[in-house]
Amino acid sequence: MATRRRKVLNSPAIRRMPSYLHWLLRMRRIGKRTVSTTELADYMKVGWIVVRKDIALTGISGRPRVGYDIDRLIDAIRGFLGWREDHSAALVGAGALGSAILGYDEFAQYGLRIESVFDTDTAKIGSTIHDHPVLALDRLPEVFRRGRPEIGILCVPASAAQAVADLLVRNGVRYLWNFANVTLDVPDSVVVQREVIAGGFAMLSVKILADRAGGGRGGRFSE
Amino acid sequence: MATRRRKVLNSPAIRRMPSYLHWLLRMRRIGKRTVSTTELADYMKVGWIVVRKDIALTGISGRPRVGYDIDRLIDAIRGFLGWREDHSAALVGAGALGSAILGYDEFAQYGLRIESVFDTDTAKIGSTIHDHPVLALDRLPEVFRRGRPEIGILCVPASAAQAVADLLVRNGVRYLWNFANVTLDVPDSVVVQREVIAGGFAMLSVKILADRAGGGRGGRFSE
Repeated sequence: MATRRRKVLNSPAIRRMPSYLHWLLRMRRIGKRTVSTTELADYMKVGWIVVRKDIALTGISGRPRVGYDIDRLIDAIRGFLGWREDHSAALVGAGALGSAILGYDEFAQYGLRIESVFDTDTAKIGSTIHDHPVLALDRLPEVFRRGRPEIGILCVPASAAQAVADLLVRNGVRYLWNFANVTLDVPDSVVVQREVIAGGFAMLSVKILADRAGGGRGGRFSE
Repeated sequence: MATRRRKVLNSPAIRRMPSYLHWLLRMRRIGKRTVSTTELADYMKVGWIVVRKDIALTGISGRPRVGYDIDRLIDAIRGFLGWREDHSAALVGAGALGSAILGYDEFAQYGLRIESVFDTDTAKIGSTIHDHPVLALDRLPEVFRRGRPEIGILCVPASAAQAVADLLVRNGVRYLWNFANVTLDVPDSVVVQREVIAGGFAMLSVKILADRAGGGRGGRFSE
């Protein structure tokens, strides 16, 4: 287990891609056609070398004095992330975090299509959150038989996460996006992306330490 | 702006620290005294070399055949993150995401002490979310005069984020944790940690692409 080979992902660069995309889509809407490395670096608050390296990952190169073609760059980022086609998903756990994810408009633009929402709380079942009807969790197998989503999004408490993961996997879901603070035990064929909200607090805390050590000169950090 | 020097942080390692800490605290509660690299790697779903490197950042080294002393490792991680002391915070935006953060018990364990919660929605003002009374945003200056928090947590819509950041900075907050999908324009002396939830979806999407390219052999990724 612990010694098997793993593909190492450049996760800071990958995590930045939606922010590039967000800004490029906005620039395109206001009629811009090209963008420079410097403009991207200013928006992203990273150095221009970071921007160059990030964009190189998508297979695009800029032209001197012209910069990047916005249409091509948008398409390249979408290709790099596999966002040229939609990803279907089911979300389990319609609490505060689940509601926040359902209300996040940008996901539709990125091709995340949440097709079904489940909960076990009878107070929530039958209600509608951001146009998504909340279904009883025990209806999941029946709903999936009519159309199985690619991705299962887990927004349940840590104590319920393993059972929900088992249910999703048993019903044919192979990609899990896990917001519960627990490592899921799943077959090797299942891909899990675990989100740890406290990870962001760890980042901020290290920046605070560095800022204090530097006499409070502020926000000069790249990730 | 774009060319100034920035300190490069090992953000994947920093983001993993709360997960190590979470698991070590749990192991200590069940009476364990030491832990091996292999156990940590199995829990974290990363290779043992990654674990060694992560822990080396905290200044701790393991002993052959014995492993890491859990008490010392917990203390070293807390020291590395600056979590030996509490961080005080104010949260602005008591919607779904704000409620999720207020409900996240683990933060108290990590020393994040949310002292005040603000919103502009009269339907929310006066209500209580996870024991936090929601105050009118225009009371912020008065509340901060009685005790200014270190950190401002922005859980407001993107369209409101800049104005809220300006208000926080004007009232003496220098550390911002920004969940709004927008780059904030703040003085150089202010440190911003921006969270992009779509960044996790980008990570999952790249893993899905890699999984498909590899014939669906599943979750062998390190970050």
